[in-house]
Amino acid sequence: MNQTSPSDPDFESRIRASFDQQGVMKTIGAHLAQVSPGEVRIELPWSKAVTQQHGFVHAGILSTIADNACGYAAYTLMPAGSEVLGVENKINFLAPAKGERFVSVGRVIKAGRTLAVCSGEVWAYDNGKETLVAVMQTTMMALVK
Amino acid sequence: MNQTSPSDPDFESRIRASFDQQGVMKTIGAHLAQVSPGEVRIELPWSKAVTQQHGFVHAGILSTIADNACGYAAYTLMPAGSEVLGVENKINFLAPAKGERFVSVGRVIKAGRTLAVCSGEVWAYDNGKETLVAVMQTTMMALVK
Amino acid sequence: MNQTSPSDPDFESRIRASFDQQGVMKTIGAHLAQVSPGEVRIELPWSKAVTQQHGFVHAGILSTIADNACGYAAYTLMPAGSEVLGVENKINFLAPAKGERFVSVGRVIKAGRTLAVCSGEVWAYDNGKETLVAVMQTTMMALVK
Amino acid sequence: MNQTSPSDPDFESRIRASFDQQGVMKTIGAHLAQVSPGEVRIELPWSKAVTQQHGFVHAGILSTIADNACGYAAYTLMPAGSEVLGVENKINFLAPAKGERFVSVGRVIKAGRTLAVCSGEVWAYDNGKETLVAVMQTTMMALVK
Repeated sequence: MNQTSPSDPDFESRIRASFDQQGVMKTIGAHLAQVSPGEVRIELPWSKAVTQQHGFVHAGILSTIADNACGYAAYTLMPAGSEVLGVENKINFLAPAKGERFVSVGRVIKAGRTLAVCSGEVWAYDNGKETLVAVMQTTMMALVK
Repeated sequence: MNQTSPSDPDFESRIRASFDQQGVMKTIGAHLAQVSPGEVRIELPWSKAVTQQHGFVHAGILSTIADNACGYAAYTLMPAGSEVLGVENKINFLAPAKGERFVSVGRVIKAGRTLAVCSGEVWAYDNGKETLVAVMQTTMMALVK
Repeated sequence: MNQTSPSDPDFESRIRASFDQQGVMKTIGAHLAQVSPGEVRIELPWSKAVTQQHGFVHAGILSTIADNACGYAAYTLMPAGSEVLGVENKINFLAPAKGERFVSVGRVIKAGRTLAVCSGEVWAYDNGKETLVAVMQTTMMALVK
Repeated sequence: MNQTSPSDPDFESRIRASFDQQGVMKTIGAHLAQVSPGEVRIELPWSKAVTQQHGFVHAGILSTIADNACGYAAYTLMPAGSEVLGVENKINFLAPAKGERFVSVGRVIKAGRTLAVCSGEVWAYDNGKETLVAVMQTTMMALVK
């Protein structure tokens, strides 16, 4: 891994192919909105399928899209042929996840040879109003074959 | 909240009603397996709908069922008329979530008046083999109307 | 608590008085470097008294100055007469804490009525080189008498 | 690393030697109370040197002794010649750290080849009363030369 630039020029197609294999992303209706070196965004429209008991997006689904954005952000900087593995994450919920769509942003804070530390955010868009609803701090691991 | 026994004798029906309103639990196919004072279990069968790129259960779905078991474990000890709110959680992933079914266990470690700290586990059952695949530590909040 | 401006105009003297009562800050040789609304900095010179086995600053001391900066950052926005209580924190260690001095920065991300979520950083200064050595995400609680 | 038994028969002397080199443990007055395979205990008497503003032990010092017990618990299972590195930790504070002495317990939950996940506890002893004041979940890394 290199902290500033991807060693694999095909990082975006590698990540899009991996994302497309994730059954859960189809299930919740999320898609990859942006794949840049060290930063990935995932967009999720609201649907009843992802709600908790009050009709807002479930905390676990916020974790899912934040963790996924962080994992792929780390993966942009990992070498071709590697796999990315989630070691752990921590998320704080700041406000009810109320809105018509949600965007998670994952950014690499520090990419080491084996581990990468990333920060994640989840933003809610509700009738033109933008609210930060969750922040994540997470560790990802590169498995190099 | 009381650390050892529920103040609301109807805690189980309150939790089952809340769980049934969560769209996401239907979507992923999870059900409440046990509701006891200070401890809740949620069971999730494997399905393609909850997978990551290698066909195992996605980390975010492990977070979802662990967080939900912890939240409802805390909720068993909260008073009638209250709501439970997830403040934050932290999860470590210990092994690939490989198996035909998964059980999350949420337990209250300490229930205060406003905040409850819970620990969560996710177990994978794979052809008769039981593996601990994730551990969680989380804070829940009681909103008393 | 108010997210953008302190309700207590005397927040700085309140925080300096509290800091001065902390035996541990004297013990490790730390001092308050900056107290602004929603942001606090603490400075710690290197000394053998705070080291781990390789002579770098111990991870727990990085936690101590990061947690303290976050707690006081939250406290700047809490009302007069309140107390600040640490609910939990999560810290990632990014690089060895090598240097002649260290600065922790605590910033409020979201201040609610009862809980505040803060982010913390610890920077090492080593012969003119600045390195981010730790990042923290934490929850603080206001106890209003 | 091996999950159940140390590969290095001299793990205890290795850990005691490392602990003795930590300036911070002398500074706060902590000592190693127990070193077993996968479990380590550290004891800290109360002193003004480790207090926060109300005279209780500072949250950061609870983190310090919990993190250290977890790190050395992981280190018991690492091979001779390796180093242990703290990747991250998360701690919840359950009660004021009031008492005349404090014991942190670190236990290995899962030891992999590179990473170990540990859980930590801090207990307060106050006039014969034992209280769990903090729980930690942490990741440690083996650096094998």
